[in-house]
Amino acid sequence: MPQDSYLVGLIGSGIGPSLSPALHEREADRQGLRYVYRLIDIDTLGVGPEAVGDLVRAARDLGFDGLNITHPCKQLVIEHLDGLAPQAEALGAVNTVVFEDGRAVGHNTDVTGFAASFARGLPDVPLEHVVQLGAGGAGAAVAHATLTLGAEHVTVVDAMPDRAVDLAAALNRHFGAGRAAAATPDGLPRLLAGADGVVHATPTGMAAHPGVPFPAGLLRAGLWVAEVVYRPLETELLRTARAVGCATLDGGGMAVFQAADAFRLFTGREPDTAAMLADIGELAGVASVRN
Amino acid sequence: MPQDSYLVGLIGSGIGPSLSPALHEREADRQGLRYVYRLIDIDTLGVGPEAVGDLVRAARDLGFDGLNITHPCKQLVIEHLDGLAPQAEALGAVNTVVFEDGRAVGHNTDVTGFAASFARGLPDVPLEHVVQLGAGGAGAAVAHATLTLGAEHVTVVDAMPDRAVDLAAALNRHFGAGRAAAATPDGLPRLLAGADGVVHATPTGMAAHPGVPFPAGLLRAGLWVAEVVYRPLETELLRTARAVGCATLDGGGMAVFQAADAFRLFTGREPDTAAMLADIGELAGVASVRN
Repeated sequence: MPQDSYLVGLIGSGIGPSLSPALHEREADRQGLRYVYRLIDIDTLGVGPEAVGDLVRAARDLGFDGLNITHPCKQLVIEHLDGLAPQAEALGAVNTVVFEDGRAVGHNTDVTGFAASFARGLPDVPLEHVVQLGAGGAGAAVAHATLTLGAEHVTVVDAMPDRAVDLAAALNRHFGAGRAAAATPDGLPRLLAGADGVVHATPTGMAAHPGVPFPAGLLRAGLWVAEVVYRPLETELLRTARAVGCATLDGGGMAVFQAADAFRLFTGREPDTAAMLADIGELAGVASVRN
Repeated sequence: MPQDSYLVGLIGSGIGPSLSPALHEREADRQGLRYVYRLIDIDTLGVGPEAVGDLVRAARDLGFDGLNITHPCKQLVIEHLDGLAPQAEALGAVNTVVFEDGRAVGHNTDVTGFAASFARGLPDVPLEHVVQLGAGGAGAAVAHATLTLGAEHVTVVDAMPDRAVDLAAALNRHFGAGRAAAATPDGLPRLLAGADGVVHATPTGMAAHPGVPFPAGLLRAGLWVAEVVYRPLETELLRTARAVGCATLDGGGMAVFQAADAFRLFTGREPDTAAMLADIGELAGVASVRN
């Protein structure tokens, strides 16, 4: 039987408000594809993150074409897969699983998605010295993307020093010694004074964590600011940065391009990313009102 | 989040050629519903019929709204459900499971589907003495339907005498003593001579089992003939019966109405059965060419 329908889902914790179903299904509708995107929330199911292996197997058995995977399962899922794409292997984290010919292959479209968003939204900005706030899962993905895009040096800043040190070490192993360093937030005045741009990859600025991640006085014209938070699309950090004269990139692009890259992997079809960017403006706006 | 999409499937053995995905998805398309129907074939998965319990649990966990169940799992599934609708309980067989508020409830739309098809296709035919060929799973469902429709007496004929005796006994327990009897094929000349109509519920006449289920000379004008086989829609039995002057009912109606009843249970929406009947004409035609 020819493949004329798609069944995908998202496995993670606390994913009820995810925009992924709407982003994927709207794009599928534009392409005339039969496409269902289901949320599989381990909290709702009352199971722990280690259940991801059983859930992935069950999804394959029941005819799913693929899955997105999010916190806290992005690392745990790996041992249950039959293969990994290069970015997923380098990062040690999977956000997309594709079932094909009975094999489950892991990808990471957080990396490719941030890279695509950055290349589109901040083309030609200087990338010699990049400061990144946040060394968690999102931070690891965007640091890989930034170095892949050609950043010469990334300093990873995290309030948990071990996390920053571990991420910097992993980046140096993969991209070459000296490409990454770790720092703590008290070093930010000096670091930002010498930086070309800053990537923000902590939850600060989300509805549940309002505020700015560092003193606004450290922003200055000439510094570019890339945001990972996308709910709301217009964070206090971005608003402040734009007022100072910084070039900025909101988190909606990463959210869209990671979904678009997953859509392409699931369907083999080219998504309309311009339409998806318009969708997320509408969806994230609605969502921020609802939160 | 409002329910705006439906995910259902069919669990069974050797179900690759099933028309259910097309019947359900075409009707959903007419109603503008996002609807995916997946085939979950235990042969393909390499598991036995007893895996149905795990598959039903997995489907619920992964966001399915419901399932159809077919051979050889219709009885085995029952112990894994939280409740049964009356026809399913009476028959001891489930062909439809609906997930609602965390509960899995079993229904049998083979019974309601045959009854609806019969009432539509052979209204007002006499039902005093009905002879039914076939005491397997389909036979049990249609005998329940025929007696529910008001047949006074059904004689169940099967080449395996125990199977006919067991079904007749179950029917008498449920509908009242004396409503059903068992017989073997050598009794058919006498039985059909005194019957109002005959229900055919064996595989004879399908592409893989060509022929007629009893000597054509036993057919006569005035006898009605209801067929369960629907691939092809025009079986040799129906062709012969119509030539003799019998009123006939093909198996497409049962296939459509069981799907329509399941669609209604899954979605809460009223299916367009006239359009579904047109669909099966087209689909069963195509399928019979392909077989």
